[in-house]
Amino acid sequence: MPASAVMRDQPINRSGIAAAAARIQNFVRHTPILQASQRDFSTDCPVTLKLELLQYAGSFKPRGAFNRMLSADIPKAGVIAASGGNHGAAVAYAARALGVPAEIFVPAATPAAKVNRIAGYGAQVVRGGAAYAEAAQTCQERQRQTGALDVHAYDHADVLCGQGTLGRELETQAPDLTHVLVATGGGGLIGGVAAWYAGSAAVISVEPEGCPTLHSALRAGEPVDVAVSGIAADSLGARRCGSLMFAVAQLHVADSVLVPDDAILTAQKMLWDRYCLIAEPGGATAAAALLSGAWVPPAGARVGVVVCGANTDPGKVAG
Amino acid sequence: MPASAVMRDQPINRSGIAAAAARIQNFVRHTPILQASQRDFSTDCPVTLKLELLQYAGSFKPRGAFNRMLSADIPKAGVIAASGGNHGAAVAYAARALGVPAEIFVPAATPAAKVNRIAGYGAQVVRGGAAYAEAAQTCQERQRQTGALDVHAYDHADVLCGQGTLGRELETQAPDLTHVLVATGGGGLIGGVAAWYAGSAAVISVEPEGCPTLHSALRAGEPVDVAVSGIAADSLGARRCGSLMFAVAQLHVADSVLVPDDAILTAQKMLWDRYCLIAEPGGATAAAALLSGAWVPPAGARVGVVVCGANTDPGKVAG
Repeated sequence: MPASAVMRDQPINRSGIAAAAARIQNFVRHTPILQASQRDFSTDCPVTLKLELLQYAGSFKPRGAFNRMLSADIPKAGVIAASGGNHGAAVAYAARALGVPAEIFVPAATPAAKVNRIAGYGAQVVRGGAAYAEAAQTCQERQRQTGALDVHAYDHADVLCGQGTLGRELETQAPDLTHVLVATGGGGLIGGVAAWYAGSAAVISVEPEGCPTLHSALRAGEPVDVAVSGIAADSLGARRCGSLMFAVAQLHVADSVLVPDDAILTAQKMLWDRYCLIAEPGGATAAAALLSGAWVPPAGARVGVVVCGANTDPGKVAG
Repeated sequence: MPASAVMRDQPINRSGIAAAAARIQNFVRHTPILQASQRDFSTDCPVTLKLELLQYAGSFKPRGAFNRMLSADIPKAGVIAASGGNHGAAVAYAARALGVPAEIFVPAATPAAKVNRIAGYGAQVVRGGAAYAEAAQTCQERQRQTGALDVHAYDHADVLCGQGTLGRELETQAPDLTHVLVATGGGGLIGGVAAWYAGSAAVISVEPEGCPTLHSALRAGEPVDVAVSGIAADSLGARRCGSLMFAVAQLHVADSVLVPDDAILTAQKMLWDRYCLIAEPGGATAAAALLSGAWVPPAGARVGVVVCGANTDPGKVAG
């Protein structure tokens, strides 16, 4: 079955996500949740942390990478991907697990912790361009030469359905949530999670002020290019959100908020100090919205916060 | 009801531990488990990690501290304790939660991360002596002056029953374990856990070679003084195991193994690299036994590993 047929066939909804969950279940971790202390978030609402930073390769990304790769015929050239780092680590991890070669394009901004992780899984790492968008372009050119399977970081139905399994898992673990806060980069995670909940819980997008990708798209009514900067740009710095996720977001993302970098730093420190968790900036961004008051839960809310990545230098978080 | 009566009345068995669990349930975290990858431990046996390092104050210690403090009448002078650091942090945390003052005696060896945590919870920190044993003696002298409630780090029935709630929680989460690996310092945690399982799973004690406290006691047939040293001495460096836990250990600790410091360092790095967890040396000691082969599971074993503390400088773990 060619990949293009799968792409058309895999619907970005609960049915497609349930199929993805069955497909990847032996390849990804069922990550735990933790009831947070309301005091830590200065709210009266119960808060549930989804500890997706404990996922293989240190972020949620293996969910989508495995679903994409297990849904396609992988050519001898293997797989190829562009990434700020986490997606590349996930593709490299999945490629090793499935026994295929991987070539990963990362921008100059990708931190050493992520490059080391990708290389540690045995993938070929190529630095290409200043930001994710340039690395993606170099990757596309290379893909046309090698014919490797392109595992897009977010704008592919299989990837979205894979990331959506996080929403499915969280709903099973904490079925009464009314709101779920998710960090948005290119939109793969929130697209999948919003497609799962489809309004049964309000899914809230959180982005750094320096990477307002979905925020700007929702205002414009279509995906638009934005400049990206700041401490979370290596994981949330997609210049333009995916077109597939944008259709989902228009239907099922209830709100979109922005947080300043210092709120992200504060959230990182709080997650270490109170929960002994090392979250990278992008991984702490959803928590930062609640902690900083950028998003205020309505009375009676039961809030889920996805802590989605750990790939950073731990010494920087606690210091 | 005076504390001495409670001490006699609280049996160190499943009944006492169940009562402790009910008493402390609103004060401690229900910490998650994570299925480990067998490959990470080079074993064919399934391995379950108990993520007790995500407990309040960064270690399992609040379980015992809360059970002791909630079982006693706390005088106006508050509570007093000696600790290598984790117990002190737990007593300080519990004292703040219960609104009573706390005075904590720590040895010179206690790292800054732990002193800062204790002080951060509002307790008075007093440096006393080179190792835990000296701090404990200074603490006793001070207790006779102030009349504060002495919250012993391990040798008290209430503390043992509190720590035993970890065993009870783990059995609920992973009912089919055949073996549970627990790090031993003064023996509060393993005493409580072994009292809970009481042979229904084999509880294995793991100590650093530099802190062979229970190992030496089991050989001698009674608690004996040992010299303590090495990277985990701040959390596992009790000079002599508790007399209450020793009676439990003789009945219900199935095996006692020692691991060198470099095995502990390797386990710390592995837990960060593969699980994005920051474990302190004592927190990684049980995992080190399995990882290094110091303890080899028999065929058909289903192994639980308690990762019991996180209070260290994260920059040291991953570096």
